[in-house]
Amino acid sequence: MSSRTVIRGGLVITASDEIHADVLIEDGRVVALAASGTPTAEAWTAERVIDATGKYVIPGGVDAHTHMELPFGGTFASDTFETGTRAAAWGGTTTIVDFAVQSVGRTLREGLDAWHAKAEGNCAIDYAFHMIVADVNDDTLKEMDLLVEEGVTSFKQFMAYPGVFYSDDGQILRAMQRSAENGALAMMHAENGIAIDVLVEQALARGETDPRYHGEVRKSLLEAEATHRAIKLAQVAGAPLYVVHVSAMEAVAELARARDEGLNVFGETCPQYLFLSTDNMAEPDFEGSKYVCSTPLRPKEHQAKLWRGLRTNDLQVVSTDHCPFCFVGQKDLGRGDFSKIPNGLPGVENRMDLLHQAVVDGHLTRRRWIEIACAAPARMFGMYPKKGTIAPGADADIVIYDPNAEQVLSVETHHMNVDYSAYEGKRVTGRVETVLSRGELVITEREYTGHAGQGAYVSRSTCQYLI
Amino acid sequence: MSSRTVIRGGLVITASDEIHADVLIEDGRVVALAASGTPTAEAWTAERVIDATGKYVIPGGVDAHTHMELPFGGTFASDTFETGTRAAAWGGTTTIVDFAVQSVGRTLREGLDAWHAKAEGNCAIDYAFHMIVADVNDDTLKEMDLLVEEGVTSFKQFMAYPGVFYSDDGQILRAMQRSAENGALAMMHAENGIAIDVLVEQALARGETDPRYHGEVRKSLLEAEATHRAIKLAQVAGAPLYVVHVSAMEAVAELARARDEGLNVFGETCPQYLFLSTDNMAEPDFEGSKYVCSTPLRPKEHQAKLWRGLRTNDLQVVSTDHCPFCFVGQKDLGRGDFSKIPNGLPGVENRMDLLHQAVVDGHLTRRRWIEIACAAPARMFGMYPKKGTIAPGADADIVIYDPNAEQVLSVETHHMNVDYSAYEGKRVTGRVETVLSRGELVITEREYTGHAGQGAYVSRSTCQYLI
Amino acid sequence: MSSRTVIRGGLVITASDEIHADVLIEDGRVVALAASGTPTAEAWTAERVIDATGKYVIPGGVDAHTHMELPFGGTFASDTFETGTRAAAWGGTTTIVDFAVQSVGRTLREGLDAWHAKAEGNCAIDYAFHMIVADVNDDTLKEMDLLVEEGVTSFKQFMAYPGVFYSDDGQILRAMQRSAENGALAMMHAENGIAIDVLVEQALARGETDPRYHGEVRKSLLEAEATHRAIKLAQVAGAPLYVVHVSAMEAVAELARARDEGLNVFGETCPQYLFLSTDNMAEPDFEGSKYVCSTPLRPKEHQAKLWRGLRTNDLQVVSTDHCPFCFVGQKDLGRGDFSKIPNGLPGVENRMDLLHQAVVDGHLTRRRWIEIACAAPARMFGMYPKKGTIAPGADADIVIYDPNAEQVLSVETHHMNVDYSAYEGKRVTGRVETVLSRGELVITEREYTGHAGQGAYVSRSTCQYLI
Amino acid sequence: MSSRTVIRGGLVITASDEIHADVLIEDGRVVALAASGTPTAEAWTAERVIDATGKYVIPGGVDAHTHMELPFGGTFASDTFETGTRAAAWGGTTTIVDFAVQSVGRTLREGLDAWHAKAEGNCAIDYAFHMIVADVNDDTLKEMDLLVEEGVTSFKQFMAYPGVFYSDDGQILRAMQRSAENGALAMMHAENGIAIDVLVEQALARGETDPRYHGEVRKSLLEAEATHRAIKLAQVAGAPLYVVHVSAMEAVAELARARDEGLNVFGETCPQYLFLSTDNMAEPDFEGSKYVCSTPLRPKEHQAKLWRGLRTNDLQVVSTDHCPFCFVGQKDLGRGDFSKIPNGLPGVENRMDLLHQAVVDGHLTRRRWIEIACAAPARMFGMYPKKGTIAPGADADIVIYDPNAEQVLSVETHHMNVDYSAYEGKRVTGRVETVLSRGELVITEREYTGHAGQGAYVSRSTCQYLI
Repeated sequence: MSSRTVIRGGLVITASDEIHADVLIEDGRVVALAASGTPTAEAWTAERVIDATGKYVIPGGVDAHTHMELPFGGTFASDTFETGTRAAAWGGTTTIVDFAVQSVGRTLREGLDAWHAKAEGNCAIDYAFHMIVADVNDDTLKEMDLLVEEGVTSFKQFMAYPGVFYSDDGQILRAMQRSAENGALAMMHAENGIAIDVLVEQALARGETDPRYHGEVRKSLLEAEATHRAIKLAQVAGAPLYVVHVSAMEAVAELARARDEGLNVFGETCPQYLFLSTDNMAEPDFEGSKYVCSTPLRPKEHQAKLWRGLRTNDLQVVSTDHCPFCFVGQKDLGRGDFSKIPNGLPGVENRMDLLHQAVVDGHLTRRRWIEIACAAPARMFGMYPKKGTIAPGADADIVIYDPNAEQVLSVETHHMNVDYSAYEGKRVTGRVETVLSRGELVITEREYTGHAGQGAYVSRSTCQYLI
Repeated sequence: MSSRTVIRGGLVITASDEIHADVLIEDGRVVALAASGTPTAEAWTAERVIDATGKYVIPGGVDAHTHMELPFGGTFASDTFETGTRAAAWGGTTTIVDFAVQSVGRTLREGLDAWHAKAEGNCAIDYAFHMIVADVNDDTLKEMDLLVEEGVTSFKQFMAYPGVFYSDDGQILRAMQRSAENGALAMMHAENGIAIDVLVEQALARGETDPRYHGEVRKSLLEAEATHRAIKLAQVAGAPLYVVHVSAMEAVAELARARDEGLNVFGETCPQYLFLSTDNMAEPDFEGSKYVCSTPLRPKEHQAKLWRGLRTNDLQVVSTDHCPFCFVGQKDLGRGDFSKIPNGLPGVENRMDLLHQAVVDGHLTRRRWIEIACAAPARMFGMYPKKGTIAPGADADIVIYDPNAEQVLSVETHHMNVDYSAYEGKRVTGRVETVLSRGELVITEREYTGHAGQGAYVSRSTCQYLI
Repeated sequence: MSSRTVIRGGLVITASDEIHADVLIEDGRVVALAASGTPTAEAWTAERVIDATGKYVIPGGVDAHTHMELPFGGTFASDTFETGTRAAAWGGTTTIVDFAVQSVGRTLREGLDAWHAKAEGNCAIDYAFHMIVADVNDDTLKEMDLLVEEGVTSFKQFMAYPGVFYSDDGQILRAMQRSAENGALAMMHAENGIAIDVLVEQALARGETDPRYHGEVRKSLLEAEATHRAIKLAQVAGAPLYVVHVSAMEAVAELARARDEGLNVFGETCPQYLFLSTDNMAEPDFEGSKYVCSTPLRPKEHQAKLWRGLRTNDLQVVSTDHCPFCFVGQKDLGRGDFSKIPNGLPGVENRMDLLHQAVVDGHLTRRRWIEIACAAPARMFGMYPKKGTIAPGADADIVIYDPNAEQVLSVETHHMNVDYSAYEGKRVTGRVETVLSRGELVITEREYTGHAGQGAYVSRSTCQYLI
Repeated sequence: MSSRTVIRGGLVITASDEIHADVLIEDGRVVALAASGTPTAEAWTAERVIDATGKYVIPGGVDAHTHMELPFGGTFASDTFETGTRAAAWGGTTTIVDFAVQSVGRTLREGLDAWHAKAEGNCAIDYAFHMIVADVNDDTLKEMDLLVEEGVTSFKQFMAYPGVFYSDDGQILRAMQRSAENGALAMMHAENGIAIDVLVEQALARGETDPRYHGEVRKSLLEAEATHRAIKLAQVAGAPLYVVHVSAMEAVAELARARDEGLNVFGETCPQYLFLSTDNMAEPDFEGSKYVCSTPLRPKEHQAKLWRGLRTNDLQVVSTDHCPFCFVGQKDLGRGDFSKIPNGLPGVENRMDLLHQAVVDGHLTRRRWIEIACAAPARMFGMYPKKGTIAPGADADIVIYDPNAEQVLSVETHHMNVDYSAYEGKRVTGRVETVLSRGELVITEREYTGHAGQGAYVSRSTCQYLI
């Protein structure tokens, strides 16, 4: 039986257009758009009619960087796929791409299977996987081809975290060469972890143990260095490159330089780098630990260069790097030694709102908001136009967004499974009202009407941005 | 009476999407899109059904730089609005923005009225106007505000052609300041004409009179210099800037540098710079004169940098600078003195095809083709989404394009009113089959079915690209 | 009769060496250097022995940019060649290069002769001339060749001051082409005066008449623009370029870019840009007028970039642009209209001391001090090794400098013919003790022992820095 | 007893001056210079008078990069300190700085002592040492301080050769931090050896075993990458950096960028990169192996950028990296496997002549020749003005150079202990006639008159170039 929904009277915003149109949904997909008020639109009948008058009708957000249940430093990120995807839906995000982890000495397959097991049947929204490659060898390289075929088309390596996720430049080069052949996208955590670990040891030896030293040792120049190195290795390999969680203005400059040369180099930043700073890490009473993540927050002057990078398209995507750890019981593992603080922030629920606030503040246009939060991540990771837009044939992942509602971000009201908000008390304009995932209501006028298992695995094609 | 058309089964390509959809047109506008083959689409009935199976369905081209009937060097560009817009339609272009000319000592109004008179009732497709400001004074500046209100929202000045169109840096700055206030877009012919005229005089004095010397005296460095100067003046004025007909790779570098800094600086190039070179200007028997235009063609190595600029978005628009002069009777005014050769090339009919060839050749993606030829010029000059896309509410300016047809460009077959083709003998893949202008057929399966006066004046809003 | 002097026991500092050596002078020239204390040195006998123990023995300063008695805005710079060169000697400078001025409609010859007449018989130290070319035409161009032959090997043009000194880009290009042929060095006042005059008029119309508005209208971006333009014109002409009085950090960046490309492009800055700022121009009660010069003083943050440019050799020379106008009776011509304030500062007496203070402050090494103040200007303008160094064969223009003496700069104690000091009250370490000009004492232990007419005209060869 | 020499009538050329002067030498040092032909000069008497009329009198060359007897790949560089320094003298070089090697697991002291033992009593000219640090640990770091005190003030690390000389980024950072404290200069072999070794393995697996593949796997981009990385690590450490044997134009660009920012970053290139290219490595019959060194020779287009870097001072020093291996018996260890070819070229005898040829060819001025070959290396490594110039007090290391003599470089005539010349058959203008080392004749009118043991160890102070 066919189920039909029509969304009437809203302003449909995509990465390229702003149109007054009604949207017809059938069997989980957008089947048609028609100019609002025309006989063609009026003629549509549907079981469910959603009135979006005065609201935005936007594609559901695509958060290309989450870490549900990630094991890190002896603990686990506090959101499960169930709690995390529910919170994502509350925040207007309808697709996440989470990172499956290969353990050193194990196969990619084992890691991927483990992540499928965590996610399957638990998600409120659709999900896909990147693969973290921690152990490059001949077998791993062959497995990469297989994973691409089954829709895992992006592989992340780390220039940081020696002894855990770290790959050396030879391993990175080999994986990139494989990507160049099989069409996958190389993703990079770009920090010179070998040099940073020397600085960590020296800082601790000087008694510099507070959270703010986390920011001082992980220097901007060492992010810029690694970014440049990753670019050169990708250039040697002939592979495209996507640098995750860019926070340093010097790293943005390296990306801009590479893109001016016409290289297929891409950059992601996160709301925490756009709205928070080293000032937060310096908060007393160990409160700074709430803001410990890697790459770290930077001094405030970096923010303007990140916003500029988003406007000039030297940065293409804003993801969250959602990786929550509770202040009590998790972050406090690092009291007296900042290097033991689990790295990560909650954010999957806040991204769409914070970026809308950036529209209100004049940093972005409405279309660019949708581009960096929905369309670009979908294209970057091979899910467009199924995800990231509202067009005939696309999945009906749609958010009804009230651009005038006001709200205050707070742990009191958020739905993420973590005991603090990184944006506690921040007042923003704009709020998610209703969310559809493949045509089904997940949030209905600010009630959760979804259920675990509603979200499905998304097999991805390869990056759609290459030039 | 309502007239309905439906285009069925084609691949609808816009700047952002490629979807298999049927397009419903009513009263000259796109009213709806629906996924092909769905009951919703099948239910549509229409007086006229166009079968686009196996074809592209693309927005009509927007050529933002034409000069119909332009007086230049004692003669007139050989295409009238009637012949020129008909040729444009044959080439898949459904909107031109032509340049009305202010004469020194006269008002903008007089110039604009004269151009309205030339165009009205004669065009096969829609048309709009930029205004060339040749005489900046207090009255002119006030007139600029009035013109913006009536839809002429872009004003071109010349750093070249002293004594004709030339403005000095003070006049440029004053006009840019006005643009900063009234929202208009400053357009610039960026060549240091004062320096060039010295080189022209010296070359002629040395007996260097052949067409190829036109290219030698109008040096790349002097285009780059003027481009940089225009950028700095715009920065001082706080105004956005659009540099027309960029041909030198050094000028592209200046644009890239400015855009990296986040300035609202834009660049246009033209097919002649992408496909032709100084080799053409060196053709014997005065044949080189066919390729004399300003900025001039450059050595071949510049082409790669222009293609790269189009991919990296350091160049945003490809227009034609269509300004044809017949080889016999016009170009030959400059025999024995290259400086007397009327400057300009025919091209309005060839642009969409040449850029599709660039898709075939791997220079561009299909979406980028539509972006630089349709969507970006429409947005740049305040006509989006009315022009430049296919979306509910947009004007039904639509081209059915056969991507597999082969053709040979030639004066024998083209429809421009000029006695040569700049691309004579060039074989390209892809051809316009059918063209609709606001829902009416102008070209029907390669028959001209339009008429003079079918095209209407388009009043434009201001630039939609500012960041 | 041979007159011999020996300077014993000092530290001889040149642009390249710091050596403990005695200096033997005969007939106005350095005849030999010998390691102090060696029998060879001890064996030297002389009529005059100067004990330099504990002192520096340095080449006399070369100030490549002065304007004695310059007519400007209806008045004349207040130092004559007599008062000005005497003050220069007091400040450790033994050569000036002043600017002879061509008036529009007159020949270069007339201008040069006039300047010879002003200087001859009046100078305490040696002097040479640059030529300001205000009127480029075929005759002027021919005269340039003649002047080069008689030792005037550098020609300055202005991109500012329309109607007075201004040359348009064609005139600049033609003069540069001539320089490329005859070996002369093109000098440029790089400010876009056409654009600036628009801003001046607008500021005055808004009632912004105070001295500080002089700085606001002469924008950094317009200095950078003109600098870039001059570089490109020089590149087209194949000529070397020397940009005078660089004050904007954006202009330094343009020079650095050109020099990275290997172009023969040079830059001069002045002490006022290194030590003063827009803060001075904002001093109340019209005091700001004391600091009005063009290019103008810049905000403080520019200073660090100028010091850096001097260290990285993107700037090669520090001259004074000495052009004094009395506060009473001259500067006050501009009360109520900043554009009428005569442009210029006194400084010829302060340069060597201020740059030594920069050594004390850690901005420069001692050798670099001598290089930018003595050797580089001498080389740049074809006077090396006659001027600018201490070596066998060189003119015995030598300063005994006490690096430990302290002094306070003040109108009370200075010798320039002007009623204020731009550095009033500034305490500096280091002081000139004794000055020889071609072996003759001009300053003897801080007594003036020279006389008008002691200084001779220096015929210069061409620039010795070209690569 | 005092021994006196006077050199009469030559053109004395230093980095800063060209003067006609006689040079008086006493007890191994320059004691005085006097203008030739003056009574002061004529009055000098000496045991030995050298007539330099028509010749250049230049400082003896300083070759800051040699590897006598270096163990590499199971063999030893074929020149001993005896044969190598004798050849150096023949080529006009009077000081070498050789690299003492720390073995992994051993102390710096052991390595330095071993090198002292090799050199002592065997050298024809003066010598100093850099120290290769292969094993960074707490003890090594402390030893660095001690070595600085005894005149070994520069420490080289390798980003290439994993398992042999390679240091990781943490080890590099720690050694650089120590240099920042003790004043030493960090020297870097900048190639990403980890990535290169992957490419080596892949090339060999493809059967690409010829010498030319050595050049293909050691990619320019990987030299540029490592150069950038070394710069960033030095910036984090606050240490100056000297990059050895720069061969890639992309690496020069990185140096230029860093120097524009005012960083204390320096670069050395070598004659082989200026005069040879990948064409040589492609010579048939394994002849290419003669040109195998690391960094490798590059395609010819890199040469122009290296020359430009020498002119713009983005490169400061030309050394030889002299490291000869015989074609027969040594180079042929790598037949069938390019990775087994000992890395290195002979050149210590050819440097001064090749750079003089560059003067003849117009690449350099005479003064710049002396600067990059004598003065700059002496300053860079703390030996100025003792070495690298001709001035009172300096060591009398002096070369009488005939600028008009012609010679053909050849194994038949050279004095290096190696069975081929890298420049076989190359005709050059200019030749060393006579060489003095601390006043003693080593080469006398093209006869070897020196002896092993004549050369002494030079204890160096720290880098004299820091800004």
